[in-house]
Amino acid sequence: MGNELTPRATDYSQWYNDLVLKGGLADYSAVRGCMVIKPYGFALWENMRDQLDKMFKETGHVNAYFPLFVPKSFLEKEEGHAEGFAKECAVVTHYRLKSDPNNKGKLIVDPEAKLDEELIVRPTSEAIIWNAYKDWIQSYRDLPLLINQWANVVRWEMRTRLFLRTTEFLWQEGHTAHATSEEAIGEAEKMLHVYADFVENYMALPVIKGVKTANERFAGALETYCIEALMQDGKALQAGTSHFLGQNFAKAFDVKFLSKENKQEYVWATSWGVSTRLIGALVMAHSDDEGLVMPPRIAPLQVAIVPIYKGPEQKAIVDAKVDEIMKALKAKGISVKYDDSDNVRPGWKFAEYELKGVPVRIAIGQKDIENKVVEVARRDTKEKQSVPQENIAEYISQLLEDIQQNLYNRALAYRDDHITKVDTWEEFKQVLHEKGGFVSAHWDGTSETEDKIKEEVKATIRCIPLDNPKEDGVCVYSGKPSTQRVLFAAAY
Amino acid sequence: MGNELTPRATDYSQWYNDLVLKGGLADYSAVRGCMVIKPYGFALWENMRDQLDKMFKETGHVNAYFPLFVPKSFLEKEEGHAEGFAKECAVVTHYRLKSDPNNKGKLIVDPEAKLDEELIVRPTSEAIIWNAYKDWIQSYRDLPLLINQWANVVRWEMRTRLFLRTTEFLWQEGHTAHATSEEAIGEAEKMLHVYADFVENYMALPVIKGVKTANERFAGALETYCIEALMQDGKALQAGTSHFLGQNFAKAFDVKFLSKENKQEYVWATSWGVSTRLIGALVMAHSDDEGLVMPPRIAPLQVAIVPIYKGPEQKAIVDAKVDEIMKALKAKGISVKYDDSDNVRPGWKFAEYELKGVPVRIAIGQKDIENKVVEVARRDTKEKQSVPQENIAEYISQLLEDIQQNLYNRALAYRDDHITKVDTWEEFKQVLHEKGGFVSAHWDGTSETEDKIKEEVKATIRCIPLDNPKEDGVCVYSGKPSTQRVLFAAAY
Repeated sequence: MGNELTPRATDYSQWYNDLVLKGGLADYSAVRGCMVIKPYGFALWENMRDQLDKMFKETGHVNAYFPLFVPKSFLEKEEGHAEGFAKECAVVTHYRLKSDPNNKGKLIVDPEAKLDEELIVRPTSEAIIWNAYKDWIQSYRDLPLLINQWANVVRWEMRTRLFLRTTEFLWQEGHTAHATSEEAIGEAEKMLHVYADFVENYMALPVIKGVKTANERFAGALETYCIEALMQDGKALQAGTSHFLGQNFAKAFDVKFLSKENKQEYVWATSWGVSTRLIGALVMAHSDDEGLVMPPRIAPLQVAIVPIYKGPEQKAIVDAKVDEIMKALKAKGISVKYDDSDNVRPGWKFAEYELKGVPVRIAIGQKDIENKVVEVARRDTKEKQSVPQENIAEYISQLLEDIQQNLYNRALAYRDDHITKVDTWEEFKQVLHEKGGFVSAHWDGTSETEDKIKEEVKATIRCIPLDNPKEDGVCVYSGKPSTQRVLFAAAY
Repeated sequence: MGNELTPRATDYSQWYNDLVLKGGLADYSAVRGCMVIKPYGFALWENMRDQLDKMFKETGHVNAYFPLFVPKSFLEKEEGHAEGFAKECAVVTHYRLKSDPNNKGKLIVDPEAKLDEELIVRPTSEAIIWNAYKDWIQSYRDLPLLINQWANVVRWEMRTRLFLRTTEFLWQEGHTAHATSEEAIGEAEKMLHVYADFVENYMALPVIKGVKTANERFAGALETYCIEALMQDGKALQAGTSHFLGQNFAKAFDVKFLSKENKQEYVWATSWGVSTRLIGALVMAHSDDEGLVMPPRIAPLQVAIVPIYKGPEQKAIVDAKVDEIMKALKAKGISVKYDDSDNVRPGWKFAEYELKGVPVRIAIGQKDIENKVVEVARRDTKEKQSVPQENIAEYISQLLEDIQQNLYNRALAYRDDHITKVDTWEEFKQVLHEKGGFVSAHWDGTSETEDKIKEEVKATIRCIPLDNPKEDGVCVYSGKPSTQRVLFAAAY
């Protein structure tokens, strides 16, 4: 194989890198912090993107495309936003190269082609989009404006990890404009639920919906809603965010509308996004020491069929049967590949499809043909079973649903087992370090305490869950009065 | 309306801009030469992209994603390529902004965050992709590698036009690797045919397939195949290109493979692309003085239904009938919108859907309901007809096909009428300036003559058609012997 994976128990972080690289999802690139998304990884992203796109359209959104570059002065217009992103901006300063007069065959930046105003490669598009909305919105009849963009963005991160934190990443960013505050908040919440629906029902990954504390809010937002998932190493991962931006961007870019009451008012805004980071979450949540485990509903390939034969005569018989099975599976909308490559042995193929996390593997040989069965192996539990060829498509279709559900249940059981209530600072530290997961603790509501906890134990408040029960208590760190528990965790 | 369009006869160029802007396809942005693709324009691009993507996958290609940035030194590696693109590169030189100490609230580029090596925003991805292929290709078993990427690219153009020539544009770029020269040439030709199939059968736009002369070749290619279309003003437009790159990039990036014969050999390459420029071609080929004309197979909206009524009672009756019709149309996969907005009159809606080029408009009022008919207006010919409600979906379905075919036939008749054979230089100039279109003339095969013609009359050789008949003659410009006619034209 040459595909030895580091076990989770040995080095979780290396295990993750091994999976991404050897599973064919992505590769490092020559550009610092940027990755190449390889065909298998991109097929996964396409399935995720297409499903999300469908859900966005079903909730009334349309797609558009805005420029990659943001003039520096635009970024300055919303103060909090500028501060939040200034430190990680790739800056275009020139628009031309020329031959190096002192070094044949080399190129240098042409000093005469300096831009009057630098352009920022978008770290997010609020600024460029709200500058456009200014021309598009005049009256309440132009609202709501419900636009989404699929795009690449660049944030110059100092420490990068494949998918989880890359300098360039792919994402979607919704940017909506509304006549009222209530409607904008409703939109931000609606999209949070869409994200949760997608991550839970397609990625088989349970999430906690909540709001961020002021410390963890998006730069320029009044409220940041989020979904938080738990990885197998007990660390949390923010899987998606949805922001209520108030009138901050409307004021920064002077976007007003004539209301039904004939008054000029500032527009209310939201933005929301998920990115290729979700692929990192998917890998870390479900995979095991043998490789990736893909949830059937978004798997690039759902079923792999491997023939077992000796000689061309047996092969021809197997081929004919597989052809039948493939047709039946495809008719049910199941994606299937027949791997009859002759340069590797079946055992190698089995390991390869395990590594790639293909949900179901079917093996079929001479004996199976005689017995009118096939061997079906499911990736999640690694169980193998002999299954009648008759009605095989119905069986596989149901099996894929079972696997999807099983992955979700498994992740949910782990997650629920890793939400621990603590009432003392000692307990807090112990649970955080020994058990991991979410630590549910009272907090006094101040940024100061939050900062100190972060500094001391590297845990942050992941969220204040929606519909969080009120409960009197004392802050686990400061001892000051608290009205509710919040969820802390170490996080990606 | 406030939507007065400049007629084609008055100012073709202004007519085009009016259509793009008022038809809601795109808008200028605050970033020089970059446009915003608005929702209607983006929906059109999505339909085009999805169909092309399907055709790429059916021909065995997979998608992947490579970094936005190309290190300057990579661009230098293939000499011709570097020369071709150096003059239009957006260059990232810094990775951080900081607060301006002398100007509160302003940001400046942090001089301490200067990159050791400048990064070029990709003008095309051969360099970054072939650098990755080096690690992916070892043996003939890894070939062919058939990868496509959907991405944004940036070329710093001095004169820009919405869709036709923008600093940033969206495109796809296929980059394939092969074991033999023959296979690579076959791939480049195959993709040219895929492009022609798409442009002709979905965009309803006839094209001439050919190869470029050395002067007009892609920077780094040994052969550039192209499809050329003709616009209504008699100018040609290059709608897509496919390049045979030989071993140039394999040599520049040292990509070798172990052949079946156990020898280390350089890999053979192709690249091919089409872009949002196609939208410009679509607009200019089919539209008229009343607005856009969308070919049904890629129209963002195929049918608009407008109710004609007085009072809520009539409205309710019309609504019920429309509901029935909508269901029938949707069941046939036809995209349809019922526009019962009450703030504008039917006449305004008619003009709006004409402007947007919706292929079919249905109007329905009280009288129509009594007579069991609807009024059907087709956008291409502007004919209106009273059509029985019975089997309306079948009728509309067929009508959409008729419109698609009619648009193609119309464009084909115009194109065929605008290929003019000339045998003298006087005739050449006269046809070029007075009639326009393709001028079919003998050429002596030298770049020198080509350059002189371009300088003198601004016409270029658009292509040497595939399967061009050999014919002895003398060059229309130099009088030197020639073995074939080639197609000249003024071009976008």
